[in-house]
Amino acid sequence: MKIAVDAMGGDHAPSAIVEGAVLAARQGGVEVILVGVEAKIQEELRKFDVAQLPIRIEHADQIVDMHDAPGKVLRSKRKSSIKVGLDLVKEGMADAFVSAGNTGAVLAFSTLILRPLKGVDRPAITVQLPTLQGSSLLLDAGANVDCKAIQLFQFGVMGHAFAKYILGKENPRVGILSIGEEDGKGNEITKEVFHMLKKSHVNFIGNVEGKEVYRGNADVVVCDGFTGNVALKISESLAEMIGKNLKEMFSRNWKSKLGYFLLKSQLAEFKKKVDHSETGGAPLLGVNGVCIIAHGSSSPKAIKNAIKRANELAEKKINEHIRDDIESNLADLDMGLWKQIKSAFVPEILEDGKKNNSEKAVDGNHVDSDEKPSISDKGKDA
Amino acid sequence: MKIAVDAMGGDHAPSAIVEGAVLAARQGGVEVILVGVEAKIQEELRKFDVAQLPIRIEHADQIVDMHDAPGKVLRSKRKSSIKVGLDLVKEGMADAFVSAGNTGAVLAFSTLILRPLKGVDRPAITVQLPTLQGSSLLLDAGANVDCKAIQLFQFGVMGHAFAKYILGKENPRVGILSIGEEDGKGNEITKEVFHMLKKSHVNFIGNVEGKEVYRGNADVVVCDGFTGNVALKISESLAEMIGKNLKEMFSRNWKSKLGYFLLKSQLAEFKKKVDHSETGGAPLLGVNGVCIIAHGSSSPKAIKNAIKRANELAEKKINEHIRDDIESNLADLDMGLWKQIKSAFVPEILEDGKKNNSEKAVDGNHVDSDEKPSISDKGKDA
Repeated sequence: MKIAVDAMGGDHAPSAIVEGAVLAARQGGVEVILVGVEAKIQEELRKFDVAQLPIRIEHADQIVDMHDAPGKVLRSKRKSSIKVGLDLVKEGMADAFVSAGNTGAVLAFSTLILRPLKGVDRPAITVQLPTLQGSSLLLDAGANVDCKAIQLFQFGVMGHAFAKYILGKENPRVGILSIGEEDGKGNEITKEVFHMLKKSHVNFIGNVEGKEVYRGNADVVVCDGFTGNVALKISESLAEMIGKNLKEMFSRNWKSKLGYFLLKSQLAEFKKKVDHSETGGAPLLGVNGVCIIAHGSSSPKAIKNAIKRANELAEKKINEHIRDDIESNLADLDMGLWKQIKSAFVPEILEDGKKNNSEKAVDGNHVDSDEKPSISDKGKDA
Repeated sequence: MKIAVDAMGGDHAPSAIVEGAVLAARQGGVEVILVGVEAKIQEELRKFDVAQLPIRIEHADQIVDMHDAPGKVLRSKRKSSIKVGLDLVKEGMADAFVSAGNTGAVLAFSTLILRPLKGVDRPAITVQLPTLQGSSLLLDAGANVDCKAIQLFQFGVMGHAFAKYILGKENPRVGILSIGEEDGKGNEITKEVFHMLKKSHVNFIGNVEGKEVYRGNADVVVCDGFTGNVALKISESLAEMIGKNLKEMFSRNWKSKLGYFLLKSQLAEFKKKVDHSETGGAPLLGVNGVCIIAHGSSSPKAIKNAIKRANELAEKKINEHIRDDIESNLADLDMGLWKQIKSAFVPEILEDGKKNNSEKAVDGNHVDSDEKPSISDKGKDA
């Protein structure tokens, strides 16, 4: 697989990016195309022995600053490493694109150049969080501020596909991030998407409270980009606060310093477990092509892992899975809606002849059958 | 001050509640009215020497279960400890109410019995978070799922009053929880409230990203109840995960056990610093009366601290401050709106005669003066 990498994006670009590309190429299995200002990339590459490595450079004149407004970038930076890299994917010259640069710009160019997948309204940033049970996915982590229910529904299906086909989870549990676990809890949007996911193919477990996220009781946590971004950033903030407090504590006196020394290997192991650079960036799911958004502060190791993750997504054809799943789920959803409309307008008595009473009366209130959902099912779900 | 305490609410009620009340009464300065099933409270009180303590019981027949739906509670539990306790506040028989019970029920009864303060649409649950700079307030933490901009504005003013008059912060910094720090970032609601808070009396510092929260760069973090609840619960979840991992790490072998032993006092100190039971529950700001919602899992110490906090809020007359601040800010807001409308409809040339050019032309685009804000100011803020 050929992975295009934005050499100019990120807090430590181009040095950390180029080094990460070298690490990935050394491990084998990928060809890396470093996209950016050729002279600068060459300068970094000279620090390594790359003669035998499958690395080439694709020149791009412009650099997108981390603080450039996406709208401005779209108009004025059409020769940037982000645009050129995504063009390579679009033209089939690369199988995936990795960038640690300006997230808004990567998002805008991806949507414009690669276009959303059929049946997907907007792509979603998908982050992998460490939990007590391994890891969980959270999406959207910030691509879409104000979301409609149908978008959250698509996020659920996409996250399900990622957990199943990439992370290899057998029957991933999909939940909606909400307040309160009961069915009727949440805001207008979460209540709406609840019913949609309940009727879908995915293993929907209902609402997931914030307190359940790091317990790992859902494999896929669905939310709008505003909530997801706040949840992700506040987690980073809390981890930073705890880390700083522990550090201060460990260095206070000889006793605590000795204590730290004795715990050092375990602490390093824990740090590795929760380190975002291990998971290799956040895939932007839902576009025609593989695009990985790496953390702005990515280290060479984080870039290497992002390249490996990009390679995996391309090899395992994530988008074909998403396309198939979206299609079959939307077909079901349409069917469900049609049945609901039908049952609202066709007098129930006309339908009753098809069933005998013992089949029909489940709890005396409604027909609890997949073959014939009615409006009253909504009441049951609520 | 007389503090009514819901003896029947909370995971460890009535024992933890009664013990907390005894601890508070022993410290002096408060009279405690334990509200609930008299026989059960008596049974708990017999465990302590309370003969000389200012504690009395107000009998209430019914108990609200932690999982009862608030709507149902309002209709069917009118003799519950929550209703009876809040009635005491309403009738002036108690100065404040504390409950670790069903949050939804406390919220519903508080709003119904005490009523919102003048100028406040809906009360907000106000939590105090530990940060790198001490502590910050976050509101709303879950009382209002779908919020309007004017409600967030009121939360900002209420949080400001709490930080100033209760926590004693000189000029508390108020920010809106959003994604991205730039002025134009956020969702529809946060963008709207941004302009309102910018024109208010409070020391408004703009958008605050999730990553800034635990850095303590805002004293008051304003958000809707959905986002606030997710942020709070996900923080609890992450802290729990880190805590469990550390615990497992500390007990792994003799080296790590020794390390833990050496760090024990510092770890205890840190735990105390971030322990919610130290802050004494979350005030429900914005109702006519003082109401504190304590964590469901409250320990006796947490209840004691909640009683002390309730006492403080009543003594320092938090609601008078909120009422004054809301009033003056709303007056300003109305004035600002009126000026905007006026400047949109009254041709600017009619107004120009009052000012000379040097006063008017600030940056060539708009009049940057408090006396005469115009619609174009909006462009500046955005």
